Amino acid sequence: MKFFRSLFILFLFNLVTFQSQAFEYLQPLPEQPIAPENNPVTEAKVQLGKTLYFDPRLSKNGERSCNSCHNLAAGGDDDGATTQKSQNPTLRSAPSVWNVAYMSTYYWDARAKTLEAQAIDHILDPNIMAISHAKNLETRLSAIPGYANLFEKAFGDNEITIVKIAQAISSFERALIVPDSRFDQFITGNKSALNEKEKRGMQLFNDKGCLSCHFGTNFAGPAPGPALKMGDGFYELFPNYRGSFYEEKYDFVSDLGRYHVTLDNEHKLMWRVPSLRNITDTAPYFHNGAISDLHQAVRIMSEVQFNYPITEEEVDDIVAFLKTLTGQYPEITLPRIPDTAGISLIPNN
Amino acid sequence: MKFFRSLFILFLFNLVTFQSQAFEYLQPLPEQPIAPENNPVTEAKVQLGKTLYFDPRLSKNGERSCNSCHNLAAGGDDDGATTQKSQNPTLRSAPSVWNVAYMSTYYWDARAKTLEAQAIDHILDPNIMAISHAKNLETRLSAIPGYANLFEKAFGDNEITIVKIAQAISSFERALIVPDSRFDQFITGNKSALNEKEKRGMQLFNDKGCLSCHFGTNFAGPAPGPALKMGDGFYELFPNYRGSFYEEKYDFVSDLGRYHVTLDNEHKLMWRVPSLRNITDTAPYFHNGAISDLHQAVRIMSEVQFNYPITEEEVDDIVAFLKTLTGQYPEITLPRIPDTAGISLIPNN
Repeated sequence: MKFFRSLFILFLFNLVTFQSQAFEYLQPLPEQPIAPENNPVTEAKVQLGKTLYFDPRLSKNGERSCNSCHNLAAGGDDDGATTQKSQNPTLRSAPSVWNVAYMSTYYWDARAKTLEAQAIDHILDPNIMAISHAKNLETRLSAIPGYANLFEKAFGDNEITIVKIAQAISSFERALIVPDSRFDQFITGNKSALNEKEKRGMQLFNDKGCLSCHFGTNFAGPAPGPALKMGDGFYELFPNYRGSFYEEKYDFVSDLGRYHVTLDNEHKLMWRVPSLRNITDTAPYFHNGAISDLHQAVRIMSEVQFNYPITEEEVDDIVAFLKTLTGQYPEITLPRIPDTAGISLIPNN
Repeated sequence: MKFFRSLFILFLFNLVTFQSQAFEYLQPLPEQPIAPENNPVTEAKVQLGKTLYFDPRLSKNGERSCNSCHNLAAGGDDDGATTQKSQNPTLRSAPSVWNVAYMSTYYWDARAKTLEAQAIDHILDPNIMAISHAKNLETRLSAIPGYANLFEKAFGDNEITIVKIAQAISSFERALIVPDSRFDQFITGNKSALNEKEKRGMQLFNDKGCLSCHFGTNFAGPAPGPALKMGDGFYELFPNYRGSFYEEKYDFVSDLGRYHVTLDNEHKLMWRVPSLRNITDTAPYFHNGAISDLHQAVRIMSEVQFNYPITEEEVDDIVAFLKTLTGQYPEITLPRIPDTAGISLIPNN
């Protein structure tokens, strides 16, 4: 909560002094991933992690890979409001995996402090990968000859454990950086990278208060670093103003957010602040994916977070600015998933 | 049916004269795709087709792309017995998309005469892509700015129709060739490409009668060309000998195959002969995917098709030969699916 309070003060400060100080709280996206000390990113781990990321055998019925819902051909998420890919849809909209290294917690309710913990949690979640027990997946992958070599290269020995699986996937994900958006070009000195409309949108993004939560490398609050330890998270109340027309229309309050993790009443309707990077590619929006249009998302934020009037022209300017946050996606070569030489490992059901 | 009969005569002939003539009915895989006259393969169509192939917005709920079930990171199919990815699983196991240009009909029951017809059928099938009406998909893709340019390049105008969608996807699929297997190296002159065990397996593959159906470019009967018109198909009875132990155990006769398409009693239990290329990567096997192990698949074929005894050593030799049919997969770069600039086109349900 301390960041919420300090940033709110920052926001008020900005309202008085206008832009220049405020924009110091925006940073360009580094091209290099950051990683925890106990799992440094190496090329071998990235290669193994990529293979695992695309391997549907990480799910119980072999019906989905990480890429099924966090699609790297698109915005790193799926297009559905919630993920419909199983008979038990997830409750919340899949967030983007791009630039995920610069989040300090994972899930909308921040229930995982690291990417590694998130990967294990996903694998064992009955609504996601639905592996009943870590041992089942370890045994399954150990029966695939091609993986032994990949684990050997990545970790120095070929024993397959769920921790190594999670470490490799996390290493691949940390390398999924989408740098060099027009915003990044602008903030690093190319003042012609944004046009006048987009600059107006950027100014409005500050003046309207959006920046008080959506700042930092990912526009999601502080990135992990000196200001915020990995796992600490940066949370905000949504909706901040209750009782709006939108709240009922889009069912914004039936899911209590972080409260479901901590059972702390102060966490009711508290959410991890989502990243705004590549937001043109991550519709639909909000935790429940109820909003399919970015313009409407901006209208709603103005109303339910600030109870401010906002004109259609202002909405359009802010959307124009948000569109400059889409970066240059790296080219990804599809991995070859190691085969099992004529044996299916998926139970016949 | 004429091919079935003529090949059966060929088979008998081989039983008397042994190998040399028979192996003339095996061909290496060409590196260039073949295509119908009304849809020649062009680079622009392949690029558009690749983008469409990976775009989950081709399915009603945005939950699957062509690649979800015909996975190009793997054997061009999925790992499930039947495709479980929807609430209405498909009845039959997804066949591989690799080398599909060299099949003369599509589906296990050959109900589509061309890849183009198959693509349209898949898009509208409520158990597959579940698009209710062609117009819905045309309208949806027309709302994605990036597609207009890709259609313009591929077809000379940017109007999006389901026929063009199918033509582009088919063009991409025709380029999905996996050449240069060790078998291909052997048959084109490198006699050391197969070891002794694999050569024994190849001889047994002829002697046991497998070659009487699994010949030609794809080991699936004649490839389209002078001997077989595109769409004519090459069908066989399965099981050929009724009442075996396997028949009941694996439920081989409840699905009547091509009969369901033609309602012709002569087509009961008739099936398109499946390709054996890359078979190490396409488990599980048979139309219902009931067999997860290639060795068991060979045992079953010997019993239910020929009512022959077969030793475990023979099975192992044949499997060793079959493993030489896996070729060199081309590297595939993941396409960027064009975004919708902040609008989701998937209905929120």
